Amino acid sequence: MATIEVLFFDVLGTVVDWRGSIADEVAVFLKRHNLPHIDAHSFADAWVGNYDAAIEPIRSGQRAFTALDNINMENLKACLAQFGLAPSQFASSELEALNLAWHKLRPWPDAVEGITQLKKHYIVAPLSDGSTRLLVDMAKHAHLPWDMVFGADISRSYKPAPRAYLHACELLDVHPQRAMLVAAHGYDLDAARTCGLKTAYVLREHASDPSKVVDAGLSEKWDHRVNNLIELAKILTSAA
Amino acid sequence: MATIEVLFFDVLGTVVDWRGSIADEVAVFLKRHNLPHIDAHSFADAWVGNYDAAIEPIRSGQRAFTALDNINMENLKACLAQFGLAPSQFASSELEALNLAWHKLRPWPDAVEGITQLKKHYIVAPLSDGSTRLLVDMAKHAHLPWDMVFGADISRSYKPAPRAYLHACELLDVHPQRAMLVAAHGYDLDAARTCGLKTAYVLREHASDPSKVVDAGLSEKWDHRVNNLIELAKILTSAA
Repeated sequence: MATIEVLFFDVLGTVVDWRGSIADEVAVFLKRHNLPHIDAHSFADAWVGNYDAAIEPIRSGQRAFTALDNINMENLKACLAQFGLAPSQFASSELEALNLAWHKLRPWPDAVEGITQLKKHYIVAPLSDGSTRLLVDMAKHAHLPWDMVFGADISRSYKPAPRAYLHACELLDVHPQRAMLVAAHGYDLDAARTCGLKTAYVLREHASDPSKVVDAGLSEKWDHRVNNLIELAKILTSAA
Repeated sequence: MATIEVLFFDVLGTVVDWRGSIADEVAVFLKRHNLPHIDAHSFADAWVGNYDAAIEPIRSGQRAFTALDNINMENLKACLAQFGLAPSQFASSELEALNLAWHKLRPWPDAVEGITQLKKHYIVAPLSDGSTRLLVDMAKHAHLPWDMVFGADISRSYKPAPRAYLHACELLDVHPQRAMLVAAHGYDLDAARTCGLKTAYVLREHASDPSKVVDAGLSEKWDHRVNNLIELAKILTSAA
């Protein structure tokens, strides 16, 4: 295997517990607005679940690139309607504050330590559908020690478009074979592998994404398969 | 003054001592090749001094964007010729290793502490003519704790083109009035101010850039004027 210089990380589901974090923020919102009949986890799953379908028109070129914050706000309003609530009954500042839940997602318990260890040997960077500001806010909030941050608004493309992976490799002046994607979703690793990157699958039991129908995570085709990021650090740095 | 969210930093001359660092690497190179008659500081000044003229055709649109590493290599070869040495007499690996001096520039003594303090209150990011990989390598080497890194290859424009400043603001989703450029060069601060950013001038006595004829650093028009980055942290965080 060529010497790896760069580790790219999927973020939503792989580094942070997006569904759990968003459900917590939704619960606070529902309580404040006296809506005890709505289940926060169901609402969060519906909100996250709209994500893939909303991005598809951008991937296919039918819609111009728009940042994830905008898509999340559109999906939030659709979710409210889905649960029988008119978005207009809430102040826009309230909805904007709830939408910022995506900027403050909680890392999985192993994430900060694992990335800190990996940073000693590799350039570590998120490669996410989130926008750059979202990822920078999240990193500051959660103390994620990234060397560089790749939001989708840099390449203006959403994964699994090849440009998302290749543009990040270009900016880090690294051949794809010397880069590795770390992710908990098979579709993401599949696309990275097609672009020439190495792959590490992270098993996140609670990270199954309601927006994705198929997850090829159990496949044997990845270069590494780990239970968490500390385990990945052990494997990669003992081999280094 | 609107609340500042983001501090952008010029890097070459402002955060790192580029001339001194490059002269040190040049001295090692000259010694290894038994060239005692060439003065390392003169050579470094000539190398750095070619920088602005080499970038001008890109700024004016006469030449397609090319990363600073390529420009530095072209200038290195021109410098060797200028000092009576044929570039072809050196192995290309030797020249590439010397060119990497730009990835390992030494921070000024106050830089890491000042940026670390400022990072507690603001998003801190370099905004440099250097490429993203160059800046990431430098940050890892020198422990510069950036939240995000803006190489010129992200916007594909060199300062003082307005796009260099405005594209970085766009990616951080920040109004220019809520961002500040910290720099030791007047032409850079002038351009940032025209784009609506706040400005902080850092006095770097040894940072005068041989590639720039005019330096408006002594002007009274900047929002702040400091002797180093620790002083800037004191001023900005006591006002915050």
